[in-house]
Amino acid sequence: MDWELQPVTEPGRRFVAAAEAHAADFAKRAAEHDADGTFPHENFDELKASGFLTAPVPEEFGGWGLTSVNDYAAGVNRLARGDGSTAIASAMHLSFCLMGARTWRLQEALGDDQAAVSGGFLSLLGAGAVAMANVTEPGTDIRHPLTEFTKVEGGYRLNGHKIFGTLSEVADLFFVPGRITNDDGSVSRVGAIVTRGTPGQQIKSNWDALGMRGSGSHDIVYEDCFIEEALMLPGGAPLGEDDMFSLSIATAAQLPLVAAMFGIAERAYELVVHMARTRKKAPSNRPLAERAAIQQQVAEMEVDMVTARALLAWGGRFLDEVFVDMPVTEVDTELLHDVNRELQCVKLTVNRKAIEIVDRALTISGGAGYMSGNELSRLYRDVRAGPFMQPLSPVDVYEYVGKVALGLDPAVES
Amino acid sequence: MDWELQPVTEPGRRFVAAAEAHAADFAKRAAEHDADGTFPHENFDELKASGFLTAPVPEEFGGWGLTSVNDYAAGVNRLARGDGSTAIASAMHLSFCLMGARTWRLQEALGDDQAAVSGGFLSLLGAGAVAMANVTEPGTDIRHPLTEFTKVEGGYRLNGHKIFGTLSEVADLFFVPGRITNDDGSVSRVGAIVTRGTPGQQIKSNWDALGMRGSGSHDIVYEDCFIEEALMLPGGAPLGEDDMFSLSIATAAQLPLVAAMFGIAERAYELVVHMARTRKKAPSNRPLAERAAIQQQVAEMEVDMVTARALLAWGGRFLDEVFVDMPVTEVDTELLHDVNRELQCVKLTVNRKAIEIVDRALTISGGAGYMSGNELSRLYRDVRAGPFMQPLSPVDVYEYVGKVALGLDPAVES
Amino acid sequence: MDWELQPVTEPGRRFVAAAEAHAADFAKRAAEHDADGTFPHENFDELKASGFLTAPVPEEFGGWGLTSVNDYAAGVNRLARGDGSTAIASAMHLSFCLMGARTWRLQEALGDDQAAVSGGFLSLLGAGAVAMANVTEPGTDIRHPLTEFTKVEGGYRLNGHKIFGTLSEVADLFFVPGRITNDDGSVSRVGAIVTRGTPGQQIKSNWDALGMRGSGSHDIVYEDCFIEEALMLPGGAPLGEDDMFSLSIATAAQLPLVAAMFGIAERAYELVVHMARTRKKAPSNRPLAERAAIQQQVAEMEVDMVTARALLAWGGRFLDEVFVDMPVTEVDTELLHDVNRELQCVKLTVNRKAIEIVDRALTISGGAGYMSGNELSRLYRDVRAGPFMQPLSPVDVYEYVGKVALGLDPAVES
Amino acid sequence: MDWELQPVTEPGRRFVAAAEAHAADFAKRAAEHDADGTFPHENFDELKASGFLTAPVPEEFGGWGLTSVNDYAAGVNRLARGDGSTAIASAMHLSFCLMGARTWRLQEALGDDQAAVSGGFLSLLGAGAVAMANVTEPGTDIRHPLTEFTKVEGGYRLNGHKIFGTLSEVADLFFVPGRITNDDGSVSRVGAIVTRGTPGQQIKSNWDALGMRGSGSHDIVYEDCFIEEALMLPGGAPLGEDDMFSLSIATAAQLPLVAAMFGIAERAYELVVHMARTRKKAPSNRPLAERAAIQQQVAEMEVDMVTARALLAWGGRFLDEVFVDMPVTEVDTELLHDVNRELQCVKLTVNRKAIEIVDRALTISGGAGYMSGNELSRLYRDVRAGPFMQPLSPVDVYEYVGKVALGLDPAVES
Repeated sequence: MDWELQPVTEPGRRFVAAAEAHAADFAKRAAEHDADGTFPHENFDELKASGFLTAPVPEEFGGWGLTSVNDYAAGVNRLARGDGSTAIASAMHLSFCLMGARTWRLQEALGDDQAAVSGGFLSLLGAGAVAMANVTEPGTDIRHPLTEFTKVEGGYRLNGHKIFGTLSEVADLFFVPGRITNDDGSVSRVGAIVTRGTPGQQIKSNWDALGMRGSGSHDIVYEDCFIEEALMLPGGAPLGEDDMFSLSIATAAQLPLVAAMFGIAERAYELVVHMARTRKKAPSNRPLAERAAIQQQVAEMEVDMVTARALLAWGGRFLDEVFVDMPVTEVDTELLHDVNRELQCVKLTVNRKAIEIVDRALTISGGAGYMSGNELSRLYRDVRAGPFMQPLSPVDVYEYVGKVALGLDPAVES
Repeated sequence: MDWELQPVTEPGRRFVAAAEAHAADFAKRAAEHDADGTFPHENFDELKASGFLTAPVPEEFGGWGLTSVNDYAAGVNRLARGDGSTAIASAMHLSFCLMGARTWRLQEALGDDQAAVSGGFLSLLGAGAVAMANVTEPGTDIRHPLTEFTKVEGGYRLNGHKIFGTLSEVADLFFVPGRITNDDGSVSRVGAIVTRGTPGQQIKSNWDALGMRGSGSHDIVYEDCFIEEALMLPGGAPLGEDDMFSLSIATAAQLPLVAAMFGIAERAYELVVHMARTRKKAPSNRPLAERAAIQQQVAEMEVDMVTARALLAWGGRFLDEVFVDMPVTEVDTELLHDVNRELQCVKLTVNRKAIEIVDRALTISGGAGYMSGNELSRLYRDVRAGPFMQPLSPVDVYEYVGKVALGLDPAVES
Repeated sequence: MDWELQPVTEPGRRFVAAAEAHAADFAKRAAEHDADGTFPHENFDELKASGFLTAPVPEEFGGWGLTSVNDYAAGVNRLARGDGSTAIASAMHLSFCLMGARTWRLQEALGDDQAAVSGGFLSLLGAGAVAMANVTEPGTDIRHPLTEFTKVEGGYRLNGHKIFGTLSEVADLFFVPGRITNDDGSVSRVGAIVTRGTPGQQIKSNWDALGMRGSGSHDIVYEDCFIEEALMLPGGAPLGEDDMFSLSIATAAQLPLVAAMFGIAERAYELVVHMARTRKKAPSNRPLAERAAIQQQVAEMEVDMVTARALLAWGGRFLDEVFVDMPVTEVDTELLHDVNRELQCVKLTVNRKAIEIVDRALTISGGAGYMSGNELSRLYRDVRAGPFMQPLSPVDVYEYVGKVALGLDPAVES
Repeated sequence: MDWELQPVTEPGRRFVAAAEAHAADFAKRAAEHDADGTFPHENFDELKASGFLTAPVPEEFGGWGLTSVNDYAAGVNRLARGDGSTAIASAMHLSFCLMGARTWRLQEALGDDQAAVSGGFLSLLGAGAVAMANVTEPGTDIRHPLTEFTKVEGGYRLNGHKIFGTLSEVADLFFVPGRITNDDGSVSRVGAIVTRGTPGQQIKSNWDALGMRGSGSHDIVYEDCFIEEALMLPGGAPLGEDDMFSLSIATAAQLPLVAAMFGIAERAYELVVHMARTRKKAPSNRPLAERAAIQQQVAEMEVDMVTARALLAWGGRFLDEVFVDMPVTEVDTELLHDVNRELQCVKLTVNRKAIEIVDRALTISGGAGYMSGNELSRLYRDVRAGPFMQPLSPVDVYEYVGKVALGLDPAVES
């Protein structure tokens, strides 16, 4: 039996196969980029060359037509076994494509003029442009951006400070959400596509973290950037509220990140089971695997592995029901809150289990895994990134889940 | 979205719908049978009347043709929301039917003469006979029965002491495994079908336990019972080894029991969420649900709910791959050990989560649930039965899982 | 080494020795009272006869002069190994004595007239009167009693409904807290001593719970009871606030209840370790203790045992620092909130560990412990009572602990 | 109330006060040594200058006369708040002193000639020599060293490969255990004191690990080192068995290491509680501490803090009973196994809680703690070292604890 997260569509199978091939390659460079804290440009050259990064772009725009969230998560999961940093950095772009395609489909279904604009972006993405969402800011949560857009002649002026700008080293397009003060004094959330090199955009090259050191998650400062009218995105929820778009990101764009953390855990499992089966210690010089105490530890790791993969498969299944099987016009925010409640529980448990699996692998390694030269020590640092992925933080998530479960307004205290 | 364990076949949908209808009825009597420790004969009268108990019998033998393990588990899950004791007692019979049908299909596929005998049993079951497996014994594990068969004129003499004889109050047929000493002095496992009322069979009517008090899980003693040759089952693994049959029971017949425990947890969840939404306390007299501390507890319960249902769905899916989708002749013990490793992890976690969910429901109840008259106090006692369901015990399971995961001989220490 | 919770004073050693002797006796009757849900009057006859119940009464009032909270907890811990119900029921009375003695000492130190009244109560207690606090009410928390006192000619009229009236079958004196509306319309907490048999007091004899079935924790209704002025207790905090008295109860009177839960766990540990060392199972017929899987389970239980006893010893130590070593006039509410934060953490973990130890004992028992006739099944039901002991509930406790730790106002949401 | 681990003797108070002063200083350099992986020589210069390193040396040999294990652990705990690496490196030396003093006292009590030799070492230590035990080896456990001593003219030849040689950068004396083949062909454990710079000793300067990067825990290779007869230590248990000396190290020398891990956790707690009380976030701009979700997380951290400190206090108390209060001649291996069972449970839980506290601090930090420049990210890496400290590993410890608890031979499978 093959117990891995399996793709269920044809584009998904292509995507997962490509991910496995890429991962084998990335694995060779991961340690070096981790040590140096450098961004693996070679990996992204290869991902571009193979067309992998266009997977979620509809075929009519030059992509592979990947729509299954399950399959998307499965591919990112495979990448992460080779290099967690590259996996999450790719996901920033791939989610942008997936969300873009979904938005375009919704606009098409509604006969919205904006469909042409979305189509334009999809063409760029299909032609190889790399995109990212540049969302998180210090000192506030993502529902209350401090980044400001101000109306000026012919467009908007943008000022703000973003952090965790994963993939910023190679992104061509940056989705930048912010706030705008309307004529009536009210404040709305709004966003723009900023192209790389727009005057006033500074990518700080300052990413230096415990793990995911090859993800290039730099600070990005926007200082009086001029944004053309055409690059502004329409609509926008009131500050503090979740709309369909943010809830789609919280769910469909989250599962692949969770799957990446599990990919890291799977790699730790593989390393340590291999070690247990082959390493022998005096005085008995039997393989460690034959000791009851090692069997116990492996079994406890196994229990966590099964829980994590069942949850990922579950998440893939229900997200595909909503994002693939349901007509795009039938999905509403109430449904998405219900889905997000379920997905946040999936995320919380899989992220925690992934951390615990790597932790136990360290334990079984008997100290060997604590050395910098041992891959387990990198996995231990990388996998801890999972719970920080927004939204929601593991601090806020209980309030959200409890409120939705109890039928209350899901807005969390802020 | 409907987050429950869902049936995926037509007979499964019929089975689940029937289970839901029955459960509503059983719920009314559950407290009384629990208090008195009596077996709910009325429930089984109704289950017989509706044909529910024939569900896994092939249609050619008068049943509903239910083959999906997932759907079988879903139905038992629904029953357990009404009455856990009835749910597990029915499962004893239903698993017997499912395993009987599978054995028959295998024999048919192999052109085995025994197919006719199996068909005969299936006809009896299709016509309404109630069956159970009478396996567990004190002082040994199920791989090493102490119950003895001895060859005598025209048949066998049976002596032994069985415990946990769930469903014994209404069973017509008892599958009784034991040991036999072969002519060469070796000892094999063997089994027989014993019909109710066979001279020498004593059903002790002594079931008195912490929970599952309506399951009639009495001791049964066999003293010099004469068993006709025709009622002996062929083959039999060496003592201590798992064969295809025992591994099928350990997996396909186990999931419904696990699903029953989750059904009990779902009921506790339902009760306590309802309470939180409706109960008001001084001085604020707001619904409890509006308190942050209650939201936190409900969220933690929710996280466990999601984990348990994802694992059940996962178990249903992979068991159906093996027991429905694969040709019956292609399944071997190596595959089944791999499946059993996965399933035992599912079982361990779901059983534990089910216990924790009910425990947390008690906590949220604030003491109300500790009263004998409150359904939660029964659920708390019933749900603790889950981990005792054989095989494997939560003591032995880690050794088994570890050994299979590490590629070692899976036999556990005894 | 003796790893038990040890008494550290002379009266404490006398108290613990007496508790051990009593417990051996109570153990013989515990199963029967549990089955029948009857109050063990014989146990209280013996506790009275030995003088055990006067232990915390100062020697000048005829008691044993027990002041150490640690030693008090150690004695109740020993009682609980024999009978959990009797242990917590005695603690209701013993805490009343301890708190009475403390109040008297404080009044003496302050030159308060009320010292004479307190001394009067202590004389009654020293002479053998049995007392209890009758605090909990349905539909509110203990900081906001709904029970009402109304000023009438020559005294007060009392109306209210109390629950969890542990020890009510034999109590002579009931401390009944309630609210009173002051002349200025404000509402204060107040309390009275009600003597058994006061017209209007109805003890409902309706205790019927999952566990602690011999504790006689009946509902008690007060309907237009007339309370003489002299039996009213002075002062009283505003509704919703904790005063020195309530914080002393939350800490010093709580530890013995927690120690009782651990006593139940110790008994489960003893039973199951004995079983593991003596019980043999086929086919090997070695003692269970020789199996690696059993050693693993026992070790995990042991880890929990050590955690629980270290926490109890810690609690005993810091409570004695505050309640024995510090001058009674130097203790203030700020200190007591700090102490209560620490104690509530002790309580939360010990209660949880006690439940887990008994749960694991059931697991190791392999099903035997699930039978009604097996002591473990009673211990499993009894030990679950721990977390319900007020204040604080395991729902509210995190908010309280977090607030105190963060230096905020400790009042919890209500 | 002061909830920290408190010294209980006069030398202990001096030791803890010195540790606090040193720690304040070390904290300033910790980040730099961590980043560079360099050994903090300045710290050890200061520790030598203050006399801190002579604390456990008896006063007659020039030390401070520290004998309390509790107080020793308290001092190391304080050091670790400033720099975990320095704390554990100092403990290597301090335990050597403590064990040396104990050995000397035992020899004195028994009238053993070796007392003079031990006294000689203590004089060296009192005069400022730095010592360490160089025990761990790759490919075996510490009860079965592969390092070999061979009898040669005038002494012994030593060959072996040691790892985790913490403190090796400044140690003057290395205690090196190994094996020797006796004349009758049997193999014994034996040991020698090797002085720094002995020809054939190579300190590899290769320590590069996930955490504790300033501990200088290099590999040390011994290649045909000549060891004078006088530097050989007498006695030695058979391979695989624990003697009094190894059990004393497993307990008395272990607690300070555990206390160091808790010191790291206390530092994380302090950082994050401070952050919660002072950091404000939009849109409310209230301190984070006022959010219910933050209070919940802090409370859960608090519960773990209380558990850890209670266990440390418990360990300090019972170790002092054995190593201070009991006459040195009355301690035997049976007692020490009982003590070690208890201590290993303390170690397991405190180490785990320390890891969890730092992990939760990261969670509460909301991502800030994941940055390399944030102290929390170092604490997260450092604290993970705890469970690797020998003996026993968290893999083997359950078997050991279970066996001792069940009254079996405590030797673990190897």
